[in-house]
Amino acid sequence: MMIIMKANATPQQTEAVIAQIKEMGLAVHLSQGVEATIIGAIGETHNIPTERFESFDGVELVQRITQPYKLASRQFHPEDSLIPVDGFNVGGNEIAVIAGPCSVESRSQIIETAIAVKEAGACALRGGVFKPRTSPYAFQGLGEEGLELLAEAREKTGLPIVVEIMSQVQLDMMLKYVDVFQVGARNMQNFNLLRALGETRTPVLLKRGLSASVEELLMSAEYILAGGNQRVMLCERGIRTFETSTRNTTDINSIPVLKNLTHLPVILDPSHSTGHANYVAAVARAAIAAGADGIIVEVHPDPAKAVSDGKQSLKPEAFAAMVKQVGQIAQIMGRGVASVQGQYSPVKQGWA
Amino acid sequence: MMIIMKANATPQQTEAVIAQIKEMGLAVHLSQGVEATIIGAIGETHNIPTERFESFDGVELVQRITQPYKLASRQFHPEDSLIPVDGFNVGGNEIAVIAGPCSVESRSQIIETAIAVKEAGACALRGGVFKPRTSPYAFQGLGEEGLELLAEAREKTGLPIVVEIMSQVQLDMMLKYVDVFQVGARNMQNFNLLRALGETRTPVLLKRGLSASVEELLMSAEYILAGGNQRVMLCERGIRTFETSTRNTTDINSIPVLKNLTHLPVILDPSHSTGHANYVAAVARAAIAAGADGIIVEVHPDPAKAVSDGKQSLKPEAFAAMVKQVGQIAQIMGRGVASVQGQYSPVKQGWA
Amino acid sequence: MMIIMKANATPQQTEAVIAQIKEMGLAVHLSQGVEATIIGAIGETHNIPTERFESFDGVELVQRITQPYKLASRQFHPEDSLIPVDGFNVGGNEIAVIAGPCSVESRSQIIETAIAVKEAGACALRGGVFKPRTSPYAFQGLGEEGLELLAEAREKTGLPIVVEIMSQVQLDMMLKYVDVFQVGARNMQNFNLLRALGETRTPVLLKRGLSASVEELLMSAEYILAGGNQRVMLCERGIRTFETSTRNTTDINSIPVLKNLTHLPVILDPSHSTGHANYVAAVARAAIAAGADGIIVEVHPDPAKAVSDGKQSLKPEAFAAMVKQVGQIAQIMGRGVASVQGQYSPVKQGWA
Amino acid sequence: MMIIMKANATPQQTEAVIAQIKEMGLAVHLSQGVEATIIGAIGETHNIPTERFESFDGVELVQRITQPYKLASRQFHPEDSLIPVDGFNVGGNEIAVIAGPCSVESRSQIIETAIAVKEAGACALRGGVFKPRTSPYAFQGLGEEGLELLAEAREKTGLPIVVEIMSQVQLDMMLKYVDVFQVGARNMQNFNLLRALGETRTPVLLKRGLSASVEELLMSAEYILAGGNQRVMLCERGIRTFETSTRNTTDINSIPVLKNLTHLPVILDPSHSTGHANYVAAVARAAIAAGADGIIVEVHPDPAKAVSDGKQSLKPEAFAAMVKQVGQIAQIMGRGVASVQGQYSPVKQGWA
Repeated sequence: MMIIMKANATPQQTEAVIAQIKEMGLAVHLSQGVEATIIGAIGETHNIPTERFESFDGVELVQRITQPYKLASRQFHPEDSLIPVDGFNVGGNEIAVIAGPCSVESRSQIIETAIAVKEAGACALRGGVFKPRTSPYAFQGLGEEGLELLAEAREKTGLPIVVEIMSQVQLDMMLKYVDVFQVGARNMQNFNLLRALGETRTPVLLKRGLSASVEELLMSAEYILAGGNQRVMLCERGIRTFETSTRNTTDINSIPVLKNLTHLPVILDPSHSTGHANYVAAVARAAIAAGADGIIVEVHPDPAKAVSDGKQSLKPEAFAAMVKQVGQIAQIMGRGVASVQGQYSPVKQGWA
Repeated sequence: MMIIMKANATPQQTEAVIAQIKEMGLAVHLSQGVEATIIGAIGETHNIPTERFESFDGVELVQRITQPYKLASRQFHPEDSLIPVDGFNVGGNEIAVIAGPCSVESRSQIIETAIAVKEAGACALRGGVFKPRTSPYAFQGLGEEGLELLAEAREKTGLPIVVEIMSQVQLDMMLKYVDVFQVGARNMQNFNLLRALGETRTPVLLKRGLSASVEELLMSAEYILAGGNQRVMLCERGIRTFETSTRNTTDINSIPVLKNLTHLPVILDPSHSTGHANYVAAVARAAIAAGADGIIVEVHPDPAKAVSDGKQSLKPEAFAAMVKQVGQIAQIMGRGVASVQGQYSPVKQGWA
Repeated sequence: MMIIMKANATPQQTEAVIAQIKEMGLAVHLSQGVEATIIGAIGETHNIPTERFESFDGVELVQRITQPYKLASRQFHPEDSLIPVDGFNVGGNEIAVIAGPCSVESRSQIIETAIAVKEAGACALRGGVFKPRTSPYAFQGLGEEGLELLAEAREKTGLPIVVEIMSQVQLDMMLKYVDVFQVGARNMQNFNLLRALGETRTPVLLKRGLSASVEELLMSAEYILAGGNQRVMLCERGIRTFETSTRNTTDINSIPVLKNLTHLPVILDPSHSTGHANYVAAVARAAIAAGADGIIVEVHPDPAKAVSDGKQSLKPEAFAAMVKQVGQIAQIMGRGVASVQGQYSPVKQGWA
Repeated sequence: MMIIMKANATPQQTEAVIAQIKEMGLAVHLSQGVEATIIGAIGETHNIPTERFESFDGVELVQRITQPYKLASRQFHPEDSLIPVDGFNVGGNEIAVIAGPCSVESRSQIIETAIAVKEAGACALRGGVFKPRTSPYAFQGLGEEGLELLAEAREKTGLPIVVEIMSQVQLDMMLKYVDVFQVGARNMQNFNLLRALGETRTPVLLKRGLSASVEELLMSAEYILAGGNQRVMLCERGIRTFETSTRNTTDINSIPVLKNLTHLPVILDPSHSTGHANYVAAVARAAIAAGADGIIVEVHPDPAKAVSDGKQSLKPEAFAAMVKQVGQIAQIMGRGVASVQGQYSPVKQGWA
């Protein structure tokens, strides 16, 4: 970390900064130039916010050289991390295709969807039972009843289940059912929840917040990793911009940027990142072409009847066509599409 | 709510929409124009998301006429709401000036700050004891110990205390101490937390999310109001944009927009909305001139020693100067600055 | 166009709106519902801004049903437009790969680059001679001398040349040299320039502005089309958002959105949309997978020596590798990569 | 300027950077730390883009210490600049209130408006004759005929006139009429236009682009200043963000930020920055409270009849009420409102 002093900073101001650096157990490297005095703080600086020095009198700016995260960083862990789910890993040569409805609505809906997405080539089933809805009057999910239906669908198809958790209060109960926890965009900086998930060994699919930077996404991953849970997948799901022709703006750049900065797998959610069923396949193909490790897609047997996200949900036929295209792009990228054997045999999960 | 059908929509598609509207207990008003068929859904539509119809085949677009919130709406409640805190109300003729450090750090720090901001004219003391930090390695707050220090500062100065809550798990414990709950920007859509706060009668200062629209802020307020807690104040604290010369972009437009749309009081936080101590006073003055009902400002006796937000914290002298200016602007607006008598006598709070 | 009156609008206010609609030569369709009176304006409404009615007393909101552009709309022109350049068309089965340096710097630089990109599979050469630089002190381009060098490079390689125009004042001179005019992001709403280009028959590559919506991009295309020049290609080059890990945010959604809304070809510029040479290939592949009709890429023989955009310029070897990958993705999409025969034979261009 | 080398940069890579710095006539200050080698480039670096070094192999990042502009910088020119217009200066103790219609529409409209705004306390008249319209089908302005009408209104009222210029082609003709040139948001980076204006001595009101940073606004001002025209006023007119409740988002922070960074006067345009007549007065008051040197406001005798911007135009009575409020806030700020004597006597303008 470099602290650049103002041209007119006094020696006392420079000394105050140096004293603070030493108090933190770091080494100091002083460089007195003509235009500016630069103070280097050397050692374990990833855990020091730049603001710690920005409020000192005489400081012009503080520049971080090393990243503010460590466990998530590819510098620290050069090889790709593989996240074992159930018979397949996320992050390796196989593309994960996760699919299912926005919300679990009924027994027939989730079973029918599970069978359809399995046949079309999905390797995991998604379905929400606690729904973060903008309106207090909107459907809020089936709760534990929905989890039981998901477990039944898993039983029938062998597909492991991916379910959103909204609060650490739900953790104990959900651990009994869930193969992969999803943390939604609105909870990406719910630090209490992240810390709680860090104490489990269940994989976490961590979605980028609506206006979170790539670096903030990695910092949130760091919360989970720091707790000891290494099974974290990141998920680009579109960011909020001025453009209104789609629900969100898919930040496709984030795929190569994240693959460069971190060893964690990166998934893309084209349903939320576009908000329109018509655009999902194009963006799913783009994701794989850009190097993503998988996609998570909303599928509903009858989107017009969906209680939520119908507009962006694919019908099973459209989903099947998309999986074929994604498979072809994966091949160009030297990869395949992950599949499950129909026999559910999860890896060891639950509390650490 | 109006559902506009595509020019080439079939009669069956129109019928399907009409059937759905009737199933929801709403009346239908059909208007068959040359360019488009428009279906009006009439009745209590504020609780129906537009997406409920957007996924029907043949639908071009869905246009809401009434707002998607009701309890927060000025249409439903034309008079300004007054939120009683302690000897003063927020939302009436008196401007609330809330001040204090970002984090409670020590007994001397919080007591010293409380006395200084009281003398300068503040009517409430802010101080964080659970801190939502981007980095898992940053200071996370003193917890309940911090609340005890805040209570002691309140005892000494008579200033009621405003404290951020991060999770519904903290609610029971915090209720024993807190006069006003603050919900931070990162938790504006932590719906579990909002619902829990709706079951109390303690005032809530609800901050706008980094990329939340004004409408979403009001929807989050609606969660608390729907639970029965009418004591909600809204807080503009800057939004995330492309501009990097300040930490956030103060959306000053949101002040008159919110005052137009809702009866709830509107506060502005110039410390977070600018991120620089040098710009706080200018934006605080602008807030009052634009019609805000108060400001919440970070003050620290020695910003360079602050464990968080030092860069944007005012020294007590600068804060006192700012309160004077704010008072003069308030006078032009036909208002005064709220003050407390030094004798703490809170309104009835806690669980409903 | 629908004008929705406020619930409490007076009959006089409604009459005033109706009178205005009739004055514009449009038909009126009145629908008096319980919650709202809706006035439909029927006829050629694409050329009427919604603001024309928004200022009438009693108006709640104005909703456009038809698009505000016509010549650019796929509704009006369902088949894909093919833009003939030189031996190849943009917008059909062949992907256009346009490449070259940000700025023409010297004879050897542009000739060397032209030969290299031709060998690697490009079908056109880009190179700037008038540079829109943020700083008045930065290199502003070689002007006409640069055009002569580009013409020489075209002579040597057969590659048609794509050059940015910054002002209608440059048009006469540039027409003598240029095969495709590029309109840069900063000039997307330089309407005088767009109108002037509409009077030529030279193809125009119109870049999306930094914060332009997809609809505004189409409106700018409409300016050129309305002048009679049908040879317009659109170019996504990244939009400005809060994310700072890349120079801009590639809006990959815009590819399927534009292909849906318009018949005009859509190109993507991964050099500007990422700003880092390392990320260009991933985003170029994504563009083609999403359905783009081509890419425009910055290539420099020695990026460290480039006077502008070195950071995002590919070395010729990296460009050649990228073209191979793009070709493979194109094949999956049922397309090929356009090529030129080495004999320059432009289509009829210049003034209409 | 500091160039920070990667931890694993080779001595050759460091040498290459040093050689380039020396070639530019700058001095080198080398600091070899444990974590990083930092190369300082010392001298006139404001005119060197950071990208000039970012493309060198081995470079981690380039950090500018001095600003990339010079003539616009307060460091270079600590005192506030006063821009003489006609009997009053912009940038001193007097607040400038500029008002008038979006477009000049007719003789009666502009004369009537001029008289009304003069009576209400405006010191200059705005009115567009060339209109940058998103749609090619919208009203594009009266051209020179409009300028004649403006000149007549000036004759009648003594108010100097502020008129938007869209292209350097219009400059010669407009110089005969105009007291202050306005450069619109869409032309903030029309560098040919800026350079042309730099060769005149007529004051320029330069509006911030829709997605331009504060720094980019200052760089555009630098283009005009570098040409020798010191009469530049900056104008905040709202930026484009995700928020849709207003047309743009007023960046009120930019007022104190600009007053800190530059000596040039700063004006705010609450009509465009909000887009709603109802919100204009609140934001105008906020602007003056934040330290702005003036406001520019759209006023129309009959907004419902306005051919453009009717929604955001004030009626004369509302404008008069706003001027009163603005005057009261100005007094708190130790300032007054500028006025003209009714006798038009412009300062020397036109070509340098």
